[in-house]
Amino acid sequence: MRLKIVFNTLGTLLIFTALSMLIPILAAIYYGEVDGVAFLVTMGFTFSAGKLLKSFTMETKRIRHREGFAIVTLGWLAVSIFGAIPFLLTDVFDSFIDAFFESVSGFTTTGATVIMSLESLSNTVLLWRSLMHWLGGMGIIVMSIAILPELAGSMQLFKAEAPGPVHERLKPRIKETAKTLWGIYILLTLLQIILLSLSDMPFFEAIIHSFGTISTGGFSSRTLSVKAYDSLLIEIIMAGFMFLAGVNLTLYYKLFTGNLKKVFKNRELKFYTGLVLGAIVLITLNLRLQVYKSLVEAFRYAAFQVTSIISTAGFATVDYDIWPPFSRGILLVLMFIGGCAGSTAGGIKVVRVYALMKKGFQELYKLIYPRAVTSLKIGDRAISNEVSTSILGFFFMYIIVFVISTITLTFFGIDLISSISAVAASLGNIGPGFGLIGPLNTYMPLPVTGKLLLSFCMILGRLEIYTVLVFIFSGFWRK
Amino acid sequence: MRLKIVFNTLGTLLIFTALSMLIPILAAIYYGEVDGVAFLVTMGFTFSAGKLLKSFTMETKRIRHREGFAIVTLGWLAVSIFGAIPFLLTDVFDSFIDAFFESVSGFTTTGATVIMSLESLSNTVLLWRSLMHWLGGMGIIVMSIAILPELAGSMQLFKAEAPGPVHERLKPRIKETAKTLWGIYILLTLLQIILLSLSDMPFFEAIIHSFGTISTGGFSSRTLSVKAYDSLLIEIIMAGFMFLAGVNLTLYYKLFTGNLKKVFKNRELKFYTGLVLGAIVLITLNLRLQVYKSLVEAFRYAAFQVTSIISTAGFATVDYDIWPPFSRGILLVLMFIGGCAGSTAGGIKVVRVYALMKKGFQELYKLIYPRAVTSLKIGDRAISNEVSTSILGFFFMYIIVFVISTITLTFFGIDLISSISAVAASLGNIGPGFGLIGPLNTYMPLPVTGKLLLSFCMILGRLEIYTVLVFIFSGFWRK
Repeated sequence: MRLKIVFNTLGTLLIFTALSMLIPILAAIYYGEVDGVAFLVTMGFTFSAGKLLKSFTMETKRIRHREGFAIVTLGWLAVSIFGAIPFLLTDVFDSFIDAFFESVSGFTTTGATVIMSLESLSNTVLLWRSLMHWLGGMGIIVMSIAILPELAGSMQLFKAEAPGPVHERLKPRIKETAKTLWGIYILLTLLQIILLSLSDMPFFEAIIHSFGTISTGGFSSRTLSVKAYDSLLIEIIMAGFMFLAGVNLTLYYKLFTGNLKKVFKNRELKFYTGLVLGAIVLITLNLRLQVYKSLVEAFRYAAFQVTSIISTAGFATVDYDIWPPFSRGILLVLMFIGGCAGSTAGGIKVVRVYALMKKGFQELYKLIYPRAVTSLKIGDRAISNEVSTSILGFFFMYIIVFVISTITLTFFGIDLISSISAVAASLGNIGPGFGLIGPLNTYMPLPVTGKLLLSFCMILGRLEIYTVLVFIFSGFWRK
Repeated sequence: MRLKIVFNTLGTLLIFTALSMLIPILAAIYYGEVDGVAFLVTMGFTFSAGKLLKSFTMETKRIRHREGFAIVTLGWLAVSIFGAIPFLLTDVFDSFIDAFFESVSGFTTTGATVIMSLESLSNTVLLWRSLMHWLGGMGIIVMSIAILPELAGSMQLFKAEAPGPVHERLKPRIKETAKTLWGIYILLTLLQIILLSLSDMPFFEAIIHSFGTISTGGFSSRTLSVKAYDSLLIEIIMAGFMFLAGVNLTLYYKLFTGNLKKVFKNRELKFYTGLVLGAIVLITLNLRLQVYKSLVEAFRYAAFQVTSIISTAGFATVDYDIWPPFSRGILLVLMFIGGCAGSTAGGIKVVRVYALMKKGFQELYKLIYPRAVTSLKIGDRAISNEVSTSILGFFFMYIIVFVISTITLTFFGIDLISSISAVAASLGNIGPGFGLIGPLNTYMPLPVTGKLLLSFCMILGRLEIYTVLVFIFSGFWRK
């Protein structure tokens, strides 16, 4: 690995991060908040660190694939570390671990918080939290659609040449693709800000919640999350955009270019919509029978929470932790599934779950008709054995990481359900879980070791596990 | 499918089941218990049903592979139905569903019970419960080592020609293999009966517990299970034999024929031993720190419970449901792993978990060195891509069945942890779980639908899922 090239790219990343701090600084000036100073200091520091890194290293046009894994993993880590500094300088936290947790949670678009009362924060800090989400979302788009397909040699899911279900290039040039998708991302954000502003939500909070929705992050400006507004209109807009944020961004490009047929024939979108509707119906019925007297009320809460969890945003309008086990069980399953590939959502991803289901049926069919020739297809696309094996392998790794992290968390004395949901919610980049870390609670009471473990889970989940593992293990095996 | 052949084999199976009822009848005569009459009636009825089935059907030497799946699935169902009759006739249960649950739990060697007080049962009935375990264990040996490898065309794990990790033929002829393994099975049972009798356990109860151990079933003659004896010696013997029962039976054959090297080089045995020791150490430390004052006491309970759960026997010497989340979490993971392939244990099986781990590392290695040529090996044996994909597929199906069953169970109002552990314990053929169905409780309070669902899970898990699914779905797809 050419460390000089890795650190050079990290330097560029830090300079961008520093420049992005201009936004909270401008907000501080506008709102006349002293917290702007902390961001000015951090910006200077981060910018210098970036410049310094670049001056000692080497730029290149050609990045080798192992260097790519290192850049992505170290990149997310570096911006999280520098992004945590303002939290310390503004006295939001005394402990670096807490600031780091909040920052990782921001940049990985998880939305798990360790802040007990959001109302005590300045607008400057609130904006920074949500901006981390929004920038993190942009990073994911670049990573999953532009960088990883070029880097990963045998990682079939990302391989540009392979008919993998995830990757679908819109335009031949990477930069063009990224720009197009960023355009869609920005457009959706603006649209949501406008709609929320037109509803009962103040403009500033509309920005906060739009940043948190499109990035499927989930940081709010209210301690009670979206529950605080108690507005049906806001909930409808939020739920709608959460659903949209969980969809593959390339589909919007097709939609805008009039390729409607392709959009409505997309299997992942259909399956995703089916999952959302199915979960809403089941939870609505369960809630109507056991919790709420009104069907409308049950539907309202169910629809919001289902789109919030499957899109991995993690906003809440109700303490779903008091829901019956059936509803909570379904939400827990949705945490693992997550949104569509090519979106900012986390989790295993709908297309993988769909492919796994089809693979399961194919295996069954092969057992019944051993001599039959079968091929795995998603829509019109054939999925090679190598790709389906790699999806199966990903599923196994996801479960293994989940199990080991959960057991480790219980070691710190956290009860089983809280541990299970904390890891599921961190690995899937959702945010709130059940029990100790339910929607009305924060991750604050967890021990330092637990917070570090979950921060690691967020990065692991965000970078689709293998990216991080390749980086960690690439030193182990030497040829 | 030639139904005549399927029903003919089922007829033979019922005749064997009828004959096996001679054992509780002899016990009834010896102990002078009137319950013997119920078994005499059931025996006559079962025998007649078997004879009737055979007289209307056709015998054959060549069974086609789809017929094999039907025979195995319907076979386990049929003996469970007929095996439930004595419970009704002796007034142990009023409800057929309860009797059926107990019977399925017996024949699948699960050991989950719906009987509140075992001390109120006659010796005749107690012996029948444990005999179901023991016969079920014999059935598993025939199924997994003699029948399935011949039947399954593309089910790689069982395919005789393929270098599958599970199947290993000792002798060319199936009947010989089965006989040899039954010999080992009987020998181990006798050895345990003798050792338990020499300890503080009455002879009759020694038989009961040995039947429940070697078959990895877990039915006891005491409501408090092995806790009732409070004897260190008994616990050591039981734990030792539970560990042994979780080992591939073919290894004993190698041991007896002096092939020691092969035994000690066996990767699955090593990994299994490592898992057991690792879990014992972790749980002992956790218990010592948080529950018990004495290290010896912590070790004693940990060692017994770990061997009991991983071997999927399910005996208990303590209410492990009050243990800290870390210890309970580890036990929950062990429920999924289960014992070695080729034993009577349930679960995913150690060799599959081992192969999956290796596969995970192989995928990682391939990402780091995309051009490297790698092959998956267990010991000296190469595992083909087809086999490793089929193991990955099995893992996925196991998790899917687990998730769907758990969600369904929560629908009946059972809390999450109880539902999770009830399904894990039924699918893995263990018996007790956590919460509502903890080691000091029974499955009695579950609703009828829940009992039926879990009975289905027991059969699914026992027959390695695909066997049952092939049977269910083979009518769906018609060429």
